[in-house]
Amino acid sequence: MTAFASLDDFAALLRAAPAADAAALAAAAARNGQLTKPPGALGRLEDLAGWLAGWQGREKPALDRVQVLIFAGNHGVAAQGVSAFPPEVTVQMVANFQAGGAAINQLARLHGASLQVHALELDRPTGDFTQGPAMTGAETLTALRTGWEAVDAQAEALVVGEMGIGNTTVAAALAAALFGGRGADWVGRGTGVDDAGLARKAAAVDAGLARHAGLTDPLAILAALGGREIAAMAGAMARARVERVPLVLDGFIACAAAAVLQRLSPAALDHAVAGHLSAEGAHGRLLTALGKEPLLSLNLRLGEGSGAAVALGVLRAAVACHSGMATFAEAGVSGG
Amino acid sequence: MTAFASLDDFAALLRAAPAADAAALAAAAARNGQLTKPPGALGRLEDLAGWLAGWQGREKPALDRVQVLIFAGNHGVAAQGVSAFPPEVTVQMVANFQAGGAAINQLARLHGASLQVHALELDRPTGDFTQGPAMTGAETLTALRTGWEAVDAQAEALVVGEMGIGNTTVAAALAAALFGGRGADWVGRGTGVDDAGLARKAAAVDAGLARHAGLTDPLAILAALGGREIAAMAGAMARARVERVPLVLDGFIACAAAAVLQRLSPAALDHAVAGHLSAEGAHGRLLTALGKEPLLSLNLRLGEGSGAAVALGVLRAAVACHSGMATFAEAGVSGG
Repeated sequence: MTAFASLDDFAALLRAAPAADAAALAAAAARNGQLTKPPGALGRLEDLAGWLAGWQGREKPALDRVQVLIFAGNHGVAAQGVSAFPPEVTVQMVANFQAGGAAINQLARLHGASLQVHALELDRPTGDFTQGPAMTGAETLTALRTGWEAVDAQAEALVVGEMGIGNTTVAAALAAALFGGRGADWVGRGTGVDDAGLARKAAAVDAGLARHAGLTDPLAILAALGGREIAAMAGAMARARVERVPLVLDGFIACAAAAVLQRLSPAALDHAVAGHLSAEGAHGRLLTALGKEPLLSLNLRLGEGSGAAVALGVLRAAVACHSGMATFAEAGVSGG
Repeated sequence: MTAFASLDDFAALLRAAPAADAAALAAAAARNGQLTKPPGALGRLEDLAGWLAGWQGREKPALDRVQVLIFAGNHGVAAQGVSAFPPEVTVQMVANFQAGGAAINQLARLHGASLQVHALELDRPTGDFTQGPAMTGAETLTALRTGWEAVDAQAEALVVGEMGIGNTTVAAALAAALFGGRGADWVGRGTGVDDAGLARKAAAVDAGLARHAGLTDPLAILAALGGREIAAMAGAMARARVERVPLVLDGFIACAAAAVLQRLSPAALDHAVAGHLSAEGAHGRLLTALGKEPLLSLNLRLGEGSGAAVALGVLRAAVACHSGMATFAEAGVSGG
């Protein structure tokens, strides 16, 4: 069930994706105006309920079928000393996800979400982008397909998370190539590097930008500077857009994957909300570039989809109110 | 089971309340350091889990027994045209709470919390504080007791909400009397008053401050300018403090009730987190005065405990991670 045969086909599918359901949006807005509360008193929860209604295509959205997808990859650029943890932690954490011991497992369980983990050739890291391209076009296509095919097209919301030692550096390189700026503008502490590690991250990004200067096609940038888990995330996010599955964006790395899509098509992220503002230094800058206002700001910097999964609690609150409250007429309250 | 015979007794109980459990705090901090994540990567969720551990007195906190209490009252100052809704909406909304149709019902259900509603003499509004005291000392004592006795001392967290047409004006008067400033510094749009309504609110607060000038005892201020539901909220919050039940503060009105307690005893709100920053104009100023950083900022301005109830989702995420995650040793992950 390969939906696209080439990177160009992928881009074309994304650009042809349908908009939200206008009738459902209108029905949800009408319902919202009749609920037993002053107009607008539920603030952003009202916007979220309407947004979910539009993408789910029904007046009363639900969140009983939520999918969390985790993609894991390893990165050649880790050899540049850009992480506080060794690369073998990627495979160890995948085992932890599979055993149910990580933060994302607890959060998925809390919200009744399904969780699937896809490890992408962890024993074969991508190329070190300071030396050459991270991936070939064929490798990029394969990773995009892995993400695309992992999505439950019937899901009522999707969270896409990641694990990959070194991948905040990869995300910084992608952000710089897509939006401009130097390494120092986009790197952060990641899992907790010291000042010297931070300097190595900036230098690695600058070296990558220099080596791959002049690229403008977002998918070519993804291949040169990205990674398998990031390409898979982009594939999953694109599939959600095509299937009209609402998407909750996680932190810096997830947003770097999303940014590739937005550069391919300005409407590519219309189905997405930003789950949170992470503690990774440049995440706020990246959210601004994407035009997204985060739901939460709790200083998380874990990845795994964890911040987006915490934000599921806000979305569930929005759905509970919108779909469960009485109308003024039902409750006999004045002022409707 | 009246725990206090006078306002002075109430203040003495609050001042003698125990601190959090130091052994549980230490055990939770030690556990947090062993969980499969980089140090600090769960940000504020880690602080919240530790805070809950300390007040619940155990290394692994839980939120299976959460109580939501709603207090409703009517206010003489409503005669000054300070609300966009008529006073009969208070009793109508109490019926809506009892029938399960309000926002807080949906949010309590979402989080598996119990919900009790206490309507305090809705057919007998408090005095109009621009003309005289809102309540006598005896009425204040009765309302404090109602709140005190409503608390489940075994609850793992408490949300205290309210309903009362006119009560943002009452809360503004309390805040001004407790922290200084004029009406214009503390009033906001409430349920949605226009500019003229906002001016009437400020004028009413200024008239109340002038009529009751010179009061310094927080409980005397509560009697002169407060209301039954606000006194009951203060009583419930104080009981939670004494019983070491963690408290999630709601919006402007709840925080005005909390402010009375903090003025009685600087440690009175050590068991409390601010659930959210509401859209009511002066809530941020009030939270600053209380020294509390909100968990959420979603532009809610509904009351009913709704913002705090949304924040329960964040607390449940913190508990799920802290109490459910594997340690480095359990998961065989490097870097613990």
